[in-house]
Amino acid sequence: MERIITFGEIMLRLNPEGYLRFTQAGKFEASYAGGEANVAASLAQFGMEASFASKVPAHEIGQCAVNELRRYGVDTRNIIRGGDRLGAYFVEKGASQRASKVIYDRANSAIALAKPEEFKWQEILKGAAWFHFTGITPALSANAAQASLDAVKAARELGVIVSCDLNYRKKLWTSETAGKVMGGLMPYVDLCIANEEDAADVFGIRSEKSDISKGALDREGYISVARQLTEKFGFKKTAITLRGSISASDNNWSGMLYDGGQAFFSPAYPVHIVDRVGGGDSFGAALIYSLLKNFDSQKAINFAVAASCLKHSIEHDFNLASVQEVEALAGGNASGRVQR
Amino acid sequence: MERIITFGEIMLRLNPEGYLRFTQAGKFEASYAGGEANVAASLAQFGMEASFASKVPAHEIGQCAVNELRRYGVDTRNIIRGGDRLGAYFVEKGASQRASKVIYDRANSAIALAKPEEFKWQEILKGAAWFHFTGITPALSANAAQASLDAVKAARELGVIVSCDLNYRKKLWTSETAGKVMGGLMPYVDLCIANEEDAADVFGIRSEKSDISKGALDREGYISVARQLTEKFGFKKTAITLRGSISASDNNWSGMLYDGGQAFFSPAYPVHIVDRVGGGDSFGAALIYSLLKNFDSQKAINFAVAASCLKHSIEHDFNLASVQEVEALAGGNASGRVQR
Amino acid sequence: MERIITFGEIMLRLNPEGYLRFTQAGKFEASYAGGEANVAASLAQFGMEASFASKVPAHEIGQCAVNELRRYGVDTRNIIRGGDRLGAYFVEKGASQRASKVIYDRANSAIALAKPEEFKWQEILKGAAWFHFTGITPALSANAAQASLDAVKAARELGVIVSCDLNYRKKLWTSETAGKVMGGLMPYVDLCIANEEDAADVFGIRSEKSDISKGALDREGYISVARQLTEKFGFKKTAITLRGSISASDNNWSGMLYDGGQAFFSPAYPVHIVDRVGGGDSFGAALIYSLLKNFDSQKAINFAVAASCLKHSIEHDFNLASVQEVEALAGGNASGRVQR
Amino acid sequence: MERIITFGEIMLRLNPEGYLRFTQAGKFEASYAGGEANVAASLAQFGMEASFASKVPAHEIGQCAVNELRRYGVDTRNIIRGGDRLGAYFVEKGASQRASKVIYDRANSAIALAKPEEFKWQEILKGAAWFHFTGITPALSANAAQASLDAVKAARELGVIVSCDLNYRKKLWTSETAGKVMGGLMPYVDLCIANEEDAADVFGIRSEKSDISKGALDREGYISVARQLTEKFGFKKTAITLRGSISASDNNWSGMLYDGGQAFFSPAYPVHIVDRVGGGDSFGAALIYSLLKNFDSQKAINFAVAASCLKHSIEHDFNLASVQEVEALAGGNASGRVQR
Amino acid sequence: MERIITFGEIMLRLNPEGYLRFTQAGKFEASYAGGEANVAASLAQFGMEASFASKVPAHEIGQCAVNELRRYGVDTRNIIRGGDRLGAYFVEKGASQRASKVIYDRANSAIALAKPEEFKWQEILKGAAWFHFTGITPALSANAAQASLDAVKAARELGVIVSCDLNYRKKLWTSETAGKVMGGLMPYVDLCIANEEDAADVFGIRSEKSDISKGALDREGYISVARQLTEKFGFKKTAITLRGSISASDNNWSGMLYDGGQAFFSPAYPVHIVDRVGGGDSFGAALIYSLLKNFDSQKAINFAVAASCLKHSIEHDFNLASVQEVEALAGGNASGRVQR
Amino acid sequence: MERIITFGEIMLRLNPEGYLRFTQAGKFEASYAGGEANVAASLAQFGMEASFASKVPAHEIGQCAVNELRRYGVDTRNIIRGGDRLGAYFVEKGASQRASKVIYDRANSAIALAKPEEFKWQEILKGAAWFHFTGITPALSANAAQASLDAVKAARELGVIVSCDLNYRKKLWTSETAGKVMGGLMPYVDLCIANEEDAADVFGIRSEKSDISKGALDREGYISVARQLTEKFGFKKTAITLRGSISASDNNWSGMLYDGGQAFFSPAYPVHIVDRVGGGDSFGAALIYSLLKNFDSQKAINFAVAASCLKHSIEHDFNLASVQEVEALAGGNASGRVQR
Repeated sequence: MERIITFGEIMLRLNPEGYLRFTQAGKFEASYAGGEANVAASLAQFGMEASFASKVPAHEIGQCAVNELRRYGVDTRNIIRGGDRLGAYFVEKGASQRASKVIYDRANSAIALAKPEEFKWQEILKGAAWFHFTGITPALSANAAQASLDAVKAARELGVIVSCDLNYRKKLWTSETAGKVMGGLMPYVDLCIANEEDAADVFGIRSEKSDISKGALDREGYISVARQLTEKFGFKKTAITLRGSISASDNNWSGMLYDGGQAFFSPAYPVHIVDRVGGGDSFGAALIYSLLKNFDSQKAINFAVAASCLKHSIEHDFNLASVQEVEALAGGNASGRVQR
Repeated sequence: MERIITFGEIMLRLNPEGYLRFTQAGKFEASYAGGEANVAASLAQFGMEASFASKVPAHEIGQCAVNELRRYGVDTRNIIRGGDRLGAYFVEKGASQRASKVIYDRANSAIALAKPEEFKWQEILKGAAWFHFTGITPALSANAAQASLDAVKAARELGVIVSCDLNYRKKLWTSETAGKVMGGLMPYVDLCIANEEDAADVFGIRSEKSDISKGALDREGYISVARQLTEKFGFKKTAITLRGSISASDNNWSGMLYDGGQAFFSPAYPVHIVDRVGGGDSFGAALIYSLLKNFDSQKAINFAVAASCLKHSIEHDFNLASVQEVEALAGGNASGRVQR
Repeated sequence: MERIITFGEIMLRLNPEGYLRFTQAGKFEASYAGGEANVAASLAQFGMEASFASKVPAHEIGQCAVNELRRYGVDTRNIIRGGDRLGAYFVEKGASQRASKVIYDRANSAIALAKPEEFKWQEILKGAAWFHFTGITPALSANAAQASLDAVKAARELGVIVSCDLNYRKKLWTSETAGKVMGGLMPYVDLCIANEEDAADVFGIRSEKSDISKGALDREGYISVARQLTEKFGFKKTAITLRGSISASDNNWSGMLYDGGQAFFSPAYPVHIVDRVGGGDSFGAALIYSLLKNFDSQKAINFAVAASCLKHSIEHDFNLASVQEVEALAGGNASGRVQR
Repeated sequence: MERIITFGEIMLRLNPEGYLRFTQAGKFEASYAGGEANVAASLAQFGMEASFASKVPAHEIGQCAVNELRRYGVDTRNIIRGGDRLGAYFVEKGASQRASKVIYDRANSAIALAKPEEFKWQEILKGAAWFHFTGITPALSANAAQASLDAVKAARELGVIVSCDLNYRKKLWTSETAGKVMGGLMPYVDLCIANEEDAADVFGIRSEKSDISKGALDREGYISVARQLTEKFGFKKTAITLRGSISASDNNWSGMLYDGGQAFFSPAYPVHIVDRVGGGDSFGAALIYSLLKNFDSQKAINFAVAASCLKHSIEHDFNLASVQEVEALAGGNASGRVQR
Repeated sequence: MERIITFGEIMLRLNPEGYLRFTQAGKFEASYAGGEANVAASLAQFGMEASFASKVPAHEIGQCAVNELRRYGVDTRNIIRGGDRLGAYFVEKGASQRASKVIYDRANSAIALAKPEEFKWQEILKGAAWFHFTGITPALSANAAQASLDAVKAARELGVIVSCDLNYRKKLWTSETAGKVMGGLMPYVDLCIANEEDAADVFGIRSEKSDISKGALDREGYISVARQLTEKFGFKKTAITLRGSISASDNNWSGMLYDGGQAFFSPAYPVHIVDRVGGGDSFGAALIYSLLKNFDSQKAINFAVAASCLKHSIEHDFNLASVQEVEALAGGNASGRVQR
Repeated sequence: MERIITFGEIMLRLNPEGYLRFTQAGKFEASYAGGEANVAASLAQFGMEASFASKVPAHEIGQCAVNELRRYGVDTRNIIRGGDRLGAYFVEKGASQRASKVIYDRANSAIALAKPEEFKWQEILKGAAWFHFTGITPALSANAAQASLDAVKAARELGVIVSCDLNYRKKLWTSETAGKVMGGLMPYVDLCIANEEDAADVFGIRSEKSDISKGALDREGYISVARQLTEKFGFKKTAITLRGSISASDNNWSGMLYDGGQAFFSPAYPVHIVDRVGGGDSFGAALIYSLLKNFDSQKAINFAVAASCLKHSIEHDFNLASVQEVEALAGGNASGRVQR
């Protein structure tokens, strides 16, 4: 069983029940999530050996985050215990024309303040087949950026495949800083995952034709973005997720995988949304799985999009879909008939 | 007021709240349900005198099942108390492309282990107008199959109309056994309820043209199935439910009633699903009501489909719709405007 | 900051959780609402100084109503404490073809039994820019009708703009009484809000072509109704909300503002409903805001319809949308993309 | 199986979850209860045939009350459907030094407005062994007082034993009116249940020594009250419940049965309270059971006090204890060891 | 009506439901609290005009804190909107021998980072009768300490009475720093509230005899501490709360007020705890109320202890007891009998 | 870190919320527990490497059990996946004089039907320091008894210490069978845990003086039982838990450890119960921990009793107390003061 290491932050996620707004809530559902933790959790559901590297406080709330990962089968031995606080974020679920809202409260978290040398990458990555991180981790702090760089360098040395989801977060850093820092990391990346906005925000790479706020999808534009990214950084593969937003309740979801020469598009799924946070992460996890399993490019993008399509029907960030469920959907069974 | 007896199993139904997956649940909603119990509960909502015959343990969980039936007005005097366990099943509600899941834990239940002679059918059926069971009951055990046979024979003797919903459950028995056992029961049945799959699974009767997983509906094919069933067993009427599955969230729902000569199709309703478990049972209940009320065939199938359409908008198995609500929908008011 | 006074009843609203029917509920969500209270709450979210005039019992349940208003920033100094009971109403949320249900238990509430002279309108309205009430308030009792008349007369004297939402409730009074009482109030009204049914029910004013139960919308008919209303009572402006009911889950929502000469129609929004109770009130509140901000007629109706479109995605009666959210939607962003 | 009829009001009971105060509650637990309904429910748990006579609205909230009674096995055929509203009451559970609070909203309920002639006592009481009501029923309205009188007269005619729990409610009527009306009913009563306050409030009968607010218990005083009551009205038996209030969390609970000559005291139980509302009703129900089963006076009072002791550990008004559980406690097993 | 200003931090309080441990929680109850906010909320329940001065972020979670205060009648006009985060803390309720746990996550909150000059004390305190803060506020940051000093100086100038609860928090600062900073503030304080530990931790003032962990209470020791504090800083009055901890479920609670010459002890209440967080704050609020109402010292301490005794029976931090409830308890009615 | 293997059944535990009775419950809290699983979970909280050997179905409910164990840090690699059902049990929490109730539905579970050879004890026990089971496991089935025997024999061979909690369950087998089967296992046991009832029920060993139902404790009697057990089977140590049941809410809890010569009694704790199920298991776990850490006998029994005392304050079966918390209590701090 291949071992995958992901590195980043895990936060306390707090959301009102159902469709209540923040100001109506007398309770928050508490789960624990973060881009790279989500990827690890999803890979563990696929039966892979996934290990999450991070730092969380030694107190009980930190323990809750560890426990949530363990519960879903993620190896937590690479989580350092220490620091003062676990980052948190608040999610208000949208519906119809009302957009979902996310409020971050993640500054000064244990992982943001961790020193690069706390992570012994040679040990952590030993025996691993894959290393994954997203653009959120280096955005957390200069320390986290350095740790990310240490990690990808070690991965390269050890022959560990590296994937990165650009995941630009404008509340964490500017496009300028992001471009500079991410630019230094990209040369070590084998698989790049992005959406059109990421590429433009971080590297100024854009396609002229698509209009994201209208949900229009433009195949040529996406291929152009992937080709530019690939040429600039030498990625082996570049994947792009395509979200057509009809409303907060209904989206069209598809994706593309560019292998340096050819672009493979998945079918598009009309999704009736239960919870879309973590959708991109579930795509990344399924793509890593596909490539570790040596699926061909078409099958890989189909699997990744089907997996992330299912994520939209699952509460909270983690994609708790199994390989069997993803394959059934990728195989064409989207009718949602009761399984009994 | 006509009295209807239904016979079968009532189970503890456990489902996570909302759209949570099983593995996310820290609580299960607890209700009590089963094909024939659902029919009885629905008939009681229609103001009929419905009595449910079964066996449940003498302990408190068995009492909970009795209480749930009483709460909704079902007569429970024909429920024997004894045996060790109440069957249970787990439901995970699907959404969008993620299918609902049902896990059964019903083996060795009190009703499955009950001896045929525990049920005094002459007494139970005395004064009844109708007896209803489904293909699940004889599938529970050889004892339950014998009890079912005793029941339908007694009903025939006493002039009680008999209906049966084929309801094939592949986890309970094989097609071969089902065909044999059900074949022995069918001669006593006046009204047969099925869907295309049931007819094929139990009796090998099929229509060539429809493709269920795509939700395609083929009128001719359904008529053909009904005709074959009718001819084989001499049913007075045969009804078929037609489900077009767009996704786990959206279905098209309609039905057909074949009177031995002519087929009557209801309108098809696009349903946005709240809970579809029990949909077929609500159709059966409403059809029994319609026929006891001497509705003509078109009105009967329209009423039955409207009733079961409403069931899809109601949580848990029981169809808690009233005659007035069903008639409003069958009469054409599908707009869902607030009643105030 | 302009000060708006609304006058009417606030009730305890009780609804089962999610889509449970009344008879399934072991708990009721408790909120506090009423047509004019809803308008005040919405205006407070828009940053306006909104004050709600009413009477509620001095006991803790009355206090709960006061607290809910305060929580959302409504001034409660004009709420008299006394009387025996807070009116209540029960809401069962519909879905798909199953309509929502509202059961009122509001007779003999503190506000219905309050004496007209308890409300010192000269003091209450001093410094106010706007006074709003709906057809529900005068329907509560003869006393409440007299208090409403006192209020609008005082408003006219003090130069306070007056708006009224016709809001005909057939369970509270007959069309005949409504026509007579409302007819006496209308001469003091500057802005009239209605839907086609209201105009017909209260004043016998109707348009021939539209068929509400089918959701058909007929622009000419609506203009005709507005014109007739305006001519009869001399309103400065008349607004009409247009609801196309596809099902209890999906509606089309739009509106029209008639300025005495020209009619302005908003875009129509397809809404996937979370809770539609209070939709009309949120329209009224947003229209008052628009006019106080001197928006032109097209912008005003667009803002009002966008605001009330958002209300349909929010639980309970109060529209907790902000000006910024409404403007984003009115500005064309209906895609519901996550804000983070 | 003996048949018992109880007559009175059933209300919607709303209480915040746990120990939340009213003003903190965003939800209310909904149950259905009332003095005489509680007695019927408790008797049904003891396996008796209990029928509750009342009137509730034909709408769904009225149906909820009927369903709750059916659920616990109470016969509901004597509940008339009609009228406008179901009475309601709000309960806030106290703890430690903070007292529980009850707010009634029961005026103008269906039962309060029902006409005496709606109740056909000859039919209702036919075949019954016992009729029970409390001082709350005649306090509801002059109509309800008349219906109570009709009932007890019919009971006397038919040889049905009559019991009455004085249950004085100062919010419903004055001591003066209560004394007059109750005085007219008492001659038809065989078993009178009271506490020292009731006797004083209704009939001015009091004992000098006990100080209720301190929880002091004075055997002689209680005997004196019972003797005076018995002599005044000719009761066959008089029972008094003795509550020693240590705090809202802890009470001492005992009782006395006076047979006209001798007084029998039960043991006193120190109860750690879960919910004490309905405690007195559960005492009455168990006493009726005891006397119908011909227990001797000591056994009867012991059974009644043990039953009502258990009620204090059960949520909501209904005493859901079984005969077996009561007998175990009355037999001396108060250790609460796990039964498995 | 006297106006009281309190100044400090309001945080998001998150606690698992009931007695669940942090690591078992899938939901957290969300309320908003902090020492000085609690005092303001309690005073508002007593009918006083209480205004809370602080700074919270402009986002929705900050708004939630404002709304919670408004809901309970606290004036929020002195809450500045800005900064990045609302402080948070986690509470795990203890029981029996298991202690409650509090985890703070309050560093870098909006109020901790606010600049002293943001608070215009001359304006804020204008017309106020009283200013209250606790030792937590100056412990938040040097800025907050300066703002506190500015406040008390302005209060002295304006003739506003000043009270301070020492409230030493060892996680926020050292005893040494606390002593220095608090020492600079104390000369402006009229009423000092403390417990024996505070006095020792902050100022090194201690009594030799009492042993806190055993719950022993030593009157002489407490008087000695109060006298030392008074002599050192010239307080007009010094109050000390006395907690005897039997277990996490049961405490004995009393207090003492020292007027510079004489010490007045309240009765001690055995409290069965619902939620003890905020107990000290409720004492402070009730003492302020007592002194503003010119109660004599004995009545004042009795009222303050009765109020805070009741707080222990109320969920979350705010003491939602009314003056009437406190007076009933202080007047000797501790029996917790139902009020109906 | 020492590795401990426990072997037995893990079940779905279903309990109503709070103090609701089974028949009131519309929801059940779902957790996963069983005697030996509880021991493993507790040891994992103490930082030990605990592995649970069992068999659970391959479906999602089986996965839930695995996930719950993983969540709390238990190694699950020795859990075989297969079989048809997960055993279940229902818990109704008692209060005051109302006893808790447990209903088992565990027959035919995957572990009960597992074949002895499915467990490769040489592999499972390799590197382990300790093996623990209870009398429940061999009671499940002849297969499970054989597997237990295989396990203890392998343990003896490999030098793994063996502990057994007698845990007699009369619903699973008779005293006669238990005595015979357990008698065959005891020679391989080093540490025996029992209560007086167990010793009597399984081996007919009893002490004359104590009266369990009254909660009386008799030191001499307990020593006598331990001595007889030790002499009969050659245990190195025998431990006995002593429960004094005052009511379902309050117990006294203590224990004794007999080392073959001397008996060591712990202090007795008065516990106010949150959830007592799993109390005995938490004692066993803590005793194993103590002995692995080479605590002397007095310290060991004190630690074990303090740990299990804390368990009574924790919901559900698992003891989620940490070593630090247990040591604080064992060290004498039972005051439950807030830790902040």
